[in-house]
Amino acid sequence: MAGKVLVLNGPNLNMLGTREPDVYGAETLNDIEAKCRARASVLGLSLDFRQSNTEGELVDWVQQAQGAFDVLIVNAGAYTHTSVALLDAIKAVDLPCIEVHLSNIHQREEFRRHSYVSKAAIGMIAGFGGFGYEMALEAAARLLTNK
Amino acid sequence: MAGKVLVLNGPNLNMLGTREPDVYGAETLNDIEAKCRARASVLGLSLDFRQSNTEGELVDWVQQAQGAFDVLIVNAGAYTHTSVALLDAIKAVDLPCIEVHLSNIHQREEFRRHSYVSKAAIGMIAGFGGFGYEMALEAAARLLTNK
Amino acid sequence: MAGKVLVLNGPNLNMLGTREPDVYGAETLNDIEAKCRARASVLGLSLDFRQSNTEGELVDWVQQAQGAFDVLIVNAGAYTHTSVALLDAIKAVDLPCIEVHLSNIHQREEFRRHSYVSKAAIGMIAGFGGFGYEMALEAAARLLTNK
Amino acid sequence: MAGKVLVLNGPNLNMLGTREPDVYGAETLNDIEAKCRARASVLGLSLDFRQSNTEGELVDWVQQAQGAFDVLIVNAGAYTHTSVALLDAIKAVDLPCIEVHLSNIHQREEFRRHSYVSKAAIGMIAGFGGFGYEMALEAAARLLTNK
Amino acid sequence: MAGKVLVLNGPNLNMLGTREPDVYGAETLNDIEAKCRARASVLGLSLDFRQSNTEGELVDWVQQAQGAFDVLIVNAGAYTHTSVALLDAIKAVDLPCIEVHLSNIHQREEFRRHSYVSKAAIGMIAGFGGFGYEMALEAAARLLTNK
Amino acid sequence: MAGKVLVLNGPNLNMLGTREPDVYGAETLNDIEAKCRARASVLGLSLDFRQSNTEGELVDWVQQAQGAFDVLIVNAGAYTHTSVALLDAIKAVDLPCIEVHLSNIHQREEFRRHSYVSKAAIGMIAGFGGFGYEMALEAAARLLTNK
Amino acid sequence: MAGKVLVLNGPNLNMLGTREPDVYGAETLNDIEAKCRARASVLGLSLDFRQSNTEGELVDWVQQAQGAFDVLIVNAGAYTHTSVALLDAIKAVDLPCIEVHLSNIHQREEFRRHSYVSKAAIGMIAGFGGFGYEMALEAAARLLTNK
Amino acid sequence: MAGKVLVLNGPNLNMLGTREPDVYGAETLNDIEAKCRARASVLGLSLDFRQSNTEGELVDWVQQAQGAFDVLIVNAGAYTHTSVALLDAIKAVDLPCIEVHLSNIHQREEFRRHSYVSKAAIGMIAGFGGFGYEMALEAAARLLTNK
Amino acid sequence: MAGKVLVLNGPNLNMLGTREPDVYGAETLNDIEAKCRARASVLGLSLDFRQSNTEGELVDWVQQAQGAFDVLIVNAGAYTHTSVALLDAIKAVDLPCIEVHLSNIHQREEFRRHSYVSKAAIGMIAGFGGFGYEMALEAAARLLTNK
Amino acid sequence: MAGKVLVLNGPNLNMLGTREPDVYGAETLNDIEAKCRARASVLGLSLDFRQSNTEGELVDWVQQAQGAFDVLIVNAGAYTHTSVALLDAIKAVDLPCIEVHLSNIHQREEFRRHSYVSKAAIGMIAGFGGFGYEMALEAAARLLTNK
Amino acid sequence: MAGKVLVLNGPNLNMLGTREPDVYGAETLNDIEAKCRARASVLGLSLDFRQSNTEGELVDWVQQAQGAFDVLIVNAGAYTHTSVALLDAIKAVDLPCIEVHLSNIHQREEFRRHSYVSKAAIGMIAGFGGFGYEMALEAAARLLTNK
Amino acid sequence: MAGKVLVLNGPNLNMLGTREPDVYGAETLNDIEAKCRARASVLGLSLDFRQSNTEGELVDWVQQAQGAFDVLIVNAGAYTHTSVALLDAIKAVDLPCIEVHLSNIHQREEFRRHSYVSKAAIGMIAGFGGFGYEMALEAAARLLTNK
Repeated sequence: MAGKVLVLNGPNLNMLGTREPDVYGAETLNDIEAKCRARASVLGLSLDFRQSNTEGELVDWVQQAQGAFDVLIVNAGAYTHTSVALLDAIKAVDLPCIEVHLSNIHQREEFRRHSYVSKAAIGMIAGFGGFGYEMALEAAARLLTNK
Repeated sequence: MAGKVLVLNGPNLNMLGTREPDVYGAETLNDIEAKCRARASVLGLSLDFRQSNTEGELVDWVQQAQGAFDVLIVNAGAYTHTSVALLDAIKAVDLPCIEVHLSNIHQREEFRRHSYVSKAAIGMIAGFGGFGYEMALEAAARLLTNK
Repeated sequence: MAGKVLVLNGPNLNMLGTREPDVYGAETLNDIEAKCRARASVLGLSLDFRQSNTEGELVDWVQQAQGAFDVLIVNAGAYTHTSVALLDAIKAVDLPCIEVHLSNIHQREEFRRHSYVSKAAIGMIAGFGGFGYEMALEAAARLLTNK
Repeated sequence: MAGKVLVLNGPNLNMLGTREPDVYGAETLNDIEAKCRARASVLGLSLDFRQSNTEGELVDWVQQAQGAFDVLIVNAGAYTHTSVALLDAIKAVDLPCIEVHLSNIHQREEFRRHSYVSKAAIGMIAGFGGFGYEMALEAAARLLTNK
Repeated sequence: MAGKVLVLNGPNLNMLGTREPDVYGAETLNDIEAKCRARASVLGLSLDFRQSNTEGELVDWVQQAQGAFDVLIVNAGAYTHTSVALLDAIKAVDLPCIEVHLSNIHQREEFRRHSYVSKAAIGMIAGFGGFGYEMALEAAARLLTNK
Repeated sequence: MAGKVLVLNGPNLNMLGTREPDVYGAETLNDIEAKCRARASVLGLSLDFRQSNTEGELVDWVQQAQGAFDVLIVNAGAYTHTSVALLDAIKAVDLPCIEVHLSNIHQREEFRRHSYVSKAAIGMIAGFGGFGYEMALEAAARLLTNK
Repeated sequence: MAGKVLVLNGPNLNMLGTREPDVYGAETLNDIEAKCRARASVLGLSLDFRQSNTEGELVDWVQQAQGAFDVLIVNAGAYTHTSVALLDAIKAVDLPCIEVHLSNIHQREEFRRHSYVSKAAIGMIAGFGGFGYEMALEAAARLLTNK
Repeated sequence: MAGKVLVLNGPNLNMLGTREPDVYGAETLNDIEAKCRARASVLGLSLDFRQSNTEGELVDWVQQAQGAFDVLIVNAGAYTHTSVALLDAIKAVDLPCIEVHLSNIHQREEFRRHSYVSKAAIGMIAGFGGFGYEMALEAAARLLTNK
Repeated sequence: MAGKVLVLNGPNLNMLGTREPDVYGAETLNDIEAKCRARASVLGLSLDFRQSNTEGELVDWVQQAQGAFDVLIVNAGAYTHTSVALLDAIKAVDLPCIEVHLSNIHQREEFRRHSYVSKAAIGMIAGFGGFGYEMALEAAARLLTNK
Repeated sequence: MAGKVLVLNGPNLNMLGTREPDVYGAETLNDIEAKCRARASVLGLSLDFRQSNTEGELVDWVQQAQGAFDVLIVNAGAYTHTSVALLDAIKAVDLPCIEVHLSNIHQREEFRRHSYVSKAAIGMIAGFGGFGYEMALEAAARLLTNK
Repeated sequence: MAGKVLVLNGPNLNMLGTREPDVYGAETLNDIEAKCRARASVLGLSLDFRQSNTEGELVDWVQQAQGAFDVLIVNAGAYTHTSVALLDAIKAVDLPCIEVHLSNIHQREEFRRHSYVSKAAIGMIAGFGGFGYEMALEAAARLLTNK
Repeated sequence: MAGKVLVLNGPNLNMLGTREPDVYGAETLNDIEAKCRARASVLGLSLDFRQSNTEGELVDWVQQAQGAFDVLIVNAGAYTHTSVALLDAIKAVDLPCIEVHLSNIHQREEFRRHSYVSKAAIGMIAGFGGFGYEMALEAAARLLTNK
């Protein structure tokens, strides 16, 4: 097994650590990436870790993942709730997708409780902060093993 | 009559042929463009045929059409359902707009049955696959003739 | 190819030309029928063109189309929005159905934006006035060719 | 003034007198017609008084009123709440329309509180039993006087 | 028969003639009162005709009508749509109530299509301008005759 | 006991056997009528078995049942969901009504889960295919016995 | 303890005893006031007991209670369901408020099941008729004791 | 054929006969069981007839039916409207399920018109009182015959 | 008067004192029971005070109250909002029921503002903490006196 | 330019400074009036500054403004959300109206996010505390200059 | 670290393996328990693993967890969507709760997309089948480490 | 005071002057910028004035404002109504934000009456055309003075 995982982060996730720390915690996105790299290394996965504030760029990246990656891990941030384009992109590529959220979106404002990404994802991990990414990597590893 | 037509394609339409073929068919966007060019040639229309995954770029293109084109043909893909910005752009330019969809959006998920583009379009053609673009060109030709 | 097409028109379409001309235009239903016959002739299609104000009669006609026609073109007028019986009739016969509307129903009152016919139709053409019928004939011809 | 008035009665109004008398009273439709004829005579109006259980027949009658009558008085019964076809017919003819209901529909089941006829009628008279028809004739006479 | 009728007019009806004349016409409330007095005289009814902008004062007047009047005619203006207090007052007195509106409220903004007064009124007359008051007096006279 | 039962079938039920057999089964309406006649014979009931695609004709038949029949069995097909006129007709006659549906309407599209007929029917039998008619005859026989 | 309690009664409560006695009982507001005075006397509370049909007057009274009273007991009648102004007044003064209703509003029309007063009240007592006021006085006494 | 049928009754059905007899009739659950046993005997079915007020116990019984019974007849009482657990249990066992209700739930409060059981049941019989159980047994016998 | 009162407490009320003390206070259910016993003694009432976490057991207890108790006092906790079974049980027994809530449920989450118990209860007391039980006992005593 | 401005303040605004200071700030209405007078003086505007708790009095004042003032500035407080009467009054007079709110109503309870005044106002200024009134005066001055 | 974890399974989870295997997979609950025990052992956690079909029993178990366990892992099955009682129990105990679902509930029927448990849980893991329990144990271990 | 203000303009605002001038006026965005610069100069503020059609670019600019500017003035155009990403960006930076709209969005289509920006903005100024920007600068100056 030498799976390739693309981790996509949506808008404002580059502000982690300074952005509403009572909601999102003090970890920065760099911290999370570092932990992901460590965990991926243990699991024998290679990792591409990206962030964009632009919906279209995230759509581009998902499309380009076809053939280049084995699993998508997606924390689409605000686009989770509004982007049909991202949903369609995920459905358009033939890759398993794991949805991650730092906070438990089910406890937040009404408009944050709905996810377009969920309609195309295998599963969701929400509420475990940056550790949720590591859980997603574990799940990705298992998916690749069971393939 | 030597009308100029701008055909705009929204997110993920560049994936046609591989993307959910049971919904969208096996034709690629290149196939559709080729057929449009052939039909436009018969109708005496010149054609610009573009695709973008980014909402803002589609808005830019619509704005730039003012003065440069005579008719817009728009398949906004997922932005059909979510983009007020695109609706406003179409309303901001003084050009007739024809809305096209490959599938019959009225038979799909609830969130795909609503179209912001419709609020600014002369008419809609939906459910005829790539042939719908050709029908739109026919309608465009007629609009220009009747002007 | 010598396809037979049944064009059905629902309530009040016999009033075209005098009925709310700012919404529906000055063409009469006879004008539209004449243009349809001309276009059908070019396309090698035979045509039956009918209108009724009674839901049950439209249902009867759809049922009788089975075996007698190859394609249905339906502008159900007001019954578009209220008739489950017509929807069921279209589903009950094994014929492709093309939905036509003179105006762009997506821009009108809320209750006109919903179509029961759409649930059984291959596609919809709306907003192109009487020319929409000719577009539907083009689409019908193509369906028969591809069969 | 020698105005011609068409009074249309929708489904089940022929059952008046026996049908749910606690809601609709003991008067029969013949009783109401007789009183209408007496009142019309006083007002110098001629009267055509019809009833049908079929939506399409009511639509036909409304269409035929064009040029033949000066005012429509419509108690569409159950079609009040469900018939877009009847609404469209009334809008299609160029005649003032007065809506009448025996009971006060605003006090009844939710689905009886909405009227499609109201969207095309000058005004509504509801809750005065058969006398409401006479009130409508008074209003019709006044409309014709003021013309 | 020497019935006493209380006609109540709600907020802004004192502005009639100058207020949105395309909606409410050029007649003033004084004009309407004069016509009501003439009609009441013919019908053998005595008349008290009042207007107030204050919900509480209208409630007071309804309460005081008990024992002093035989019929209420109520055009509650804007309070039609918002005043449960007025509804309760009408239900609290043992008098038949006739609801009048100048315009056809069923054709106006959504919030004007609902009437609390309707829940307690015998019937509604809407859309006949000031003449609707005279129709209400006719209906009142008939109610008193039939008592 | 020599009860007379009127069995009414709404639109498209004449298409049974060919219409969407995965939903409605392979039995034709003639098959069902034959089984009903056999069962009625055993139960000592006389039977009138009719079908119409026209709402108004079904309303007519219900009205004419008064005095001529003892029980109504109604499978109103699509009019189940849209016809207030049929509901009013059933309420207007003084006869027990049993509602039958071939499929379990509670498992179908949202708009098929609501029944106007139910508001006037003693009970509903749904989901047992043509056998449901026989169950309704059993219930009718029992109603007549218990009268 | 020598607490001062202001009891406010909203519109139509002055009609108690004659108003819809099957809903509100035969007790008059004077009867209730008398029982309140007796109970207050036992509890060592002084009492001001008022009624108004005018929303603004009730708002005035609530505002004036600041510094003059220790507890508010409010039966706002119809304004319960419609008055944001009264809610704001109660929130603007620094006094505990107890909400009382004669009937169990949770069993009445939909629009009577919502209370703006509840958003600012400590608690609600509903359905116990005039005795509910005495229960509120008990609760007021307890509140003052626990202060 | 020697089919085994499990008849399950939900909460408060043990109160039949005394509970709201105008809604549910005077028959007791014992009466119904007796009639069911008689009918089952005629049909050659064996019968287990149970009642519980506890959702979990009903779920247990459904689960245990797998392998022990051939058909489920379920009158889940109040749990009809609220129990997803019961729905899941019925779906989890591989047995045909027939839903029974004493009253016509479609005529009752809004919250009683929705049934979770319907989502897993072959069909529904509602409104025929205790006789509905016998009809269900007839249907069960037929199901077993057709197997 | 020697009335017998059954006080029923729903799920998690056994956790009072430790459970979310900012919402529910520091009093334990034992404290409340003790105060109820003292108050009942003064009022000449006998008391049975129970708690259960199981919906079915609460239903059982309500059913068994018939003939054994004179009044029900019910704080159904979470089942207030979800249990149709409990509502039906209360309606099935012929006993007055008083609903109590510790907190003012009208100020809490949307799903806590609806009560099924209210549909069967004489009245509701909410927001007065444990003292609300004592108020309910006062109301029970009065009900028994007035019987 | 010597414009006359009427500033109207709705219910509870006389409580400013003491009323929920975390929402509305510590400024009193007198403070705001003083600042308005200073700013008006600079702008060459005359000012009438009023407050009332009674909907009808606010309606009276708006009506009287016709001919006496050039601009209305309205902070209708709670009546913003509930008063159709006030909306109608503003529409009935031929004066530009500027809507002011101390807090940002878009961030508050659902029922405070809707404004009837907005339907008749040129614009809204919300969330700037007492300074919003000064901004409104600036806008008023500009309106008068541009007239 | 020697944390104690209580894993609770709701209704029908004992049917895993045989119940709708296309939705829930072929693993039995015993299989999942075994894997949990293995993983717990690696993580140094002790485990109590229970299942019940009864809402009240699950509430009891949650209450008893206080003081006896360090973390709750809850797959409430159908009660996820309907049980306010379970939500309240989780909030009543002072323990972190991790919500697990076998399937991705966001892709299922509307009524399965809402979770009461989520309102009290730290986070949710959904869609990873039995492996989700192991992920929950990883998260539990981390929570205990970070304490 | 030497505050730095970032003014952000969303999609299609670059079309001002030509775009729907009856809604948005004849002023161009350059005109508005010029007036803003003049006003800023008077107020001692420095100004950065930008426009973009791309949601992600607007998010980028908001993020970069942290530390570089003192106040945000945002007219997000169509993204006002659809962009959670922009809302999150504004919340992520620690800067006061003032929302501006040219038209009174409260009078426009339903989907334009909701603003995500409002959830993070201090206040809103809507309906004053380009002058609203100047008002926002006044408000910004005051905010900086009061800091």
